[in-house]
Amino acid sequence: MENYEILKDLAIVLLAAKFFGLVARKCKAPMVVGEIIAGLLLGPIIHIVENNDFLGKMAEIGVILIMFSAGLETNLKELKKSGVKALAIAVMGVFIPLVGGTILYLCYYGFDKIGSEQFFKALFVGSIMTATSVGITVECLKEMGFLKGEIGQLIVSAAIIDDVIGIVVLTFVLGFKDPEAQPLRVVGNTFAFLALAVLLGILIYKLMKWVDARYPHSRRIPIIGLGLCFAISFCAEKFFGIADITGAYVAGIMLCNINDAPYVDRKVSVTGYMFFGPIFFVGIGLKTDFSAMTKDMIVFSLLFVLVAMACKVIGCGLITKAFKYPGIDCLKVGVGMMTRGEVALIITQKGLSVGLIDSSFFAPVILLIIVSSITVPILLKVLYAKKPDPQVEAKG
Amino acid sequence: MENYEILKDLAIVLLAAKFFGLVARKCKAPMVVGEIIAGLLLGPIIHIVENNDFLGKMAEIGVILIMFSAGLETNLKELKKSGVKALAIAVMGVFIPLVGGTILYLCYYGFDKIGSEQFFKALFVGSIMTATSVGITVECLKEMGFLKGEIGQLIVSAAIIDDVIGIVVLTFVLGFKDPEAQPLRVVGNTFAFLALAVLLGILIYKLMKWVDARYPHSRRIPIIGLGLCFAISFCAEKFFGIADITGAYVAGIMLCNINDAPYVDRKVSVTGYMFFGPIFFVGIGLKTDFSAMTKDMIVFSLLFVLVAMACKVIGCGLITKAFKYPGIDCLKVGVGMMTRGEVALIITQKGLSVGLIDSSFFAPVILLIIVSSITVPILLKVLYAKKPDPQVEAKG
Repeated sequence: MENYEILKDLAIVLLAAKFFGLVARKCKAPMVVGEIIAGLLLGPIIHIVENNDFLGKMAEIGVILIMFSAGLETNLKELKKSGVKALAIAVMGVFIPLVGGTILYLCYYGFDKIGSEQFFKALFVGSIMTATSVGITVECLKEMGFLKGEIGQLIVSAAIIDDVIGIVVLTFVLGFKDPEAQPLRVVGNTFAFLALAVLLGILIYKLMKWVDARYPHSRRIPIIGLGLCFAISFCAEKFFGIADITGAYVAGIMLCNINDAPYVDRKVSVTGYMFFGPIFFVGIGLKTDFSAMTKDMIVFSLLFVLVAMACKVIGCGLITKAFKYPGIDCLKVGVGMMTRGEVALIITQKGLSVGLIDSSFFAPVILLIIVSSITVPILLKVLYAKKPDPQVEAKG
Repeated sequence: MENYEILKDLAIVLLAAKFFGLVARKCKAPMVVGEIIAGLLLGPIIHIVENNDFLGKMAEIGVILIMFSAGLETNLKELKKSGVKALAIAVMGVFIPLVGGTILYLCYYGFDKIGSEQFFKALFVGSIMTATSVGITVECLKEMGFLKGEIGQLIVSAAIIDDVIGIVVLTFVLGFKDPEAQPLRVVGNTFAFLALAVLLGILIYKLMKWVDARYPHSRRIPIIGLGLCFAISFCAEKFFGIADITGAYVAGIMLCNINDAPYVDRKVSVTGYMFFGPIFFVGIGLKTDFSAMTKDMIVFSLLFVLVAMACKVIGCGLITKAFKYPGIDCLKVGVGMMTRGEVALIITQKGLSVGLIDSSFFAPVILLIIVSSITVPILLKVLYAKKPDPQVEAKG
């Protein structure tokens, strides 16, 4: 392939992603859904762009940037403040879907034994269900004026913690995937990485804080940050067997408290949305294999969506009830946590690249994103209309 | 290669480029020089990053972004105003180095006949010498407070026109490179492309102006712009045999008059300096082949630098003299136009990718950039100290 041939793919991917993304937004769906649809159209349907090695690598960079940015946006102080309640909701919001997804897979595809490959596939499908992408919920609550209310804040905090726990779960599941993996070693590696990340994180944080104080808002800050992000992602995967996306997220958290964190995030985000982000989401569409959509897979997809949504409501709702909130508020929390988005796709992509699942599994995940992002805003409106939580801010 | 392996290369390239770029700036050299040195160090010297297909494609995107940005920054109105004098200086500043470089190559490597491959190689080496990169000169004049003086403005305008003419020359030379190329067809293709570019350009300009008026400062503006840039670059190369970099430059000019042109330029530039730009310049270093640096090549490099610098002074100086400027001011114009930079590298890279020259030719070009960017500021200071042009602004 001549170098200039990539320009065609890039032009088509970027323009189509933007167009369908805007159409999706017009339909009140997340832009991501539009971008995936663009990919489905360009690839499996009209075949004018084929997924290739170059686009695959660009998409990988896209995911790294998204996770780095998520890390950078983490507010450690808020997390500490939101305390026990949010933590408990997050834990249950991860645990119940993980169990639910695992059981669904084992019931549908047959149970082998604990520790078998089949078992880890099931566990992986469960972990796809864990990560809440709270963007849609936040937008919806903001629109209704309930975001700063107690329930709204609880949902947001829980969703952030939920990401962290989800990443830890993913790390373990991927670590154990190798049938010959020694459990102790996986646990050891993971803890070694986290311990090193904390030590190195403090060092890097101090160093960057110093650089930042001397040269605030200079180009070197985001560039060094990005370089570190790539280095940490690479080392995580290469030396600890931990997913590069975990490394990118951790790199973001290391830098989230420097003064220029929002500045770094802005620069990284520009690069992300101008280029790598759309390539990642369109790439999901390109890779989707319609021929794998057997009747079996369709039924599984529908069950997957149901279980994923029900488990979040049950897990988060019950634990909220345990804190003695009225039933309607428990439902709000549960429904608010139901939305899934890019993180679910990123986890699925990771499973595909390590060979745990095949590309037909994008279908249930895409369906989950679409269904949850359409139903959650409707359900939240109904629930808030029934009985608002008392600590509500003035509508606006 | 696993996808995550690219993260290592990216981390090293970005961090090294930034570090050596900053060191270069400390030494009053352009950052580009530092980035090239980073590449020389990482590749041919200590071998921790090897040039590969992926980095090559990223570098290609980098060049496209640089040329698109150059097009976007074109000020058509200023160009029209600066008029005949600047045009004449630019034409001579392209013509004399083109002839000088061609003669140098033919004298050094032997003359075949007009139209032979050897002849086109010589012509290509000449066209590498044509493009002034006025950045260093501008910075230096700004520092001394002479930028807005008549001579300063003349230099800047001439350098911009010089880029346009350089691109046209490059287009013809590359078009003719094929020994079986039919001259009429090359000329026809070029004119067809330019005619279409004007027509399409007006359409695209009107369309984008409309979008821009409806959604000013929205993300869609830079993304659509970038998509168009890729599409036009691809079509130029694919259907007209015109260098993709010419396409990118033309795409930039098409959009340079919309209100949000600076906004698009900013977003494209962020993506450029965060990512693709450093990869391009480090890539030049990576590709440099020291084993090709025979005694012959070293002598040629020195001559190349001398001829390239002398021809600009002679060409631009003489024509300025023809406009009856005092001798010292003619020298200022000539010296101010001597600086070469990224455009010379981009042209060299193009010649390498179409097989007109081999990678050993990076050496004379890199040397030219380094020498010109060190000597020009010194010479300008001396010349301005001797006798300032009378229309000078207050120092500041």
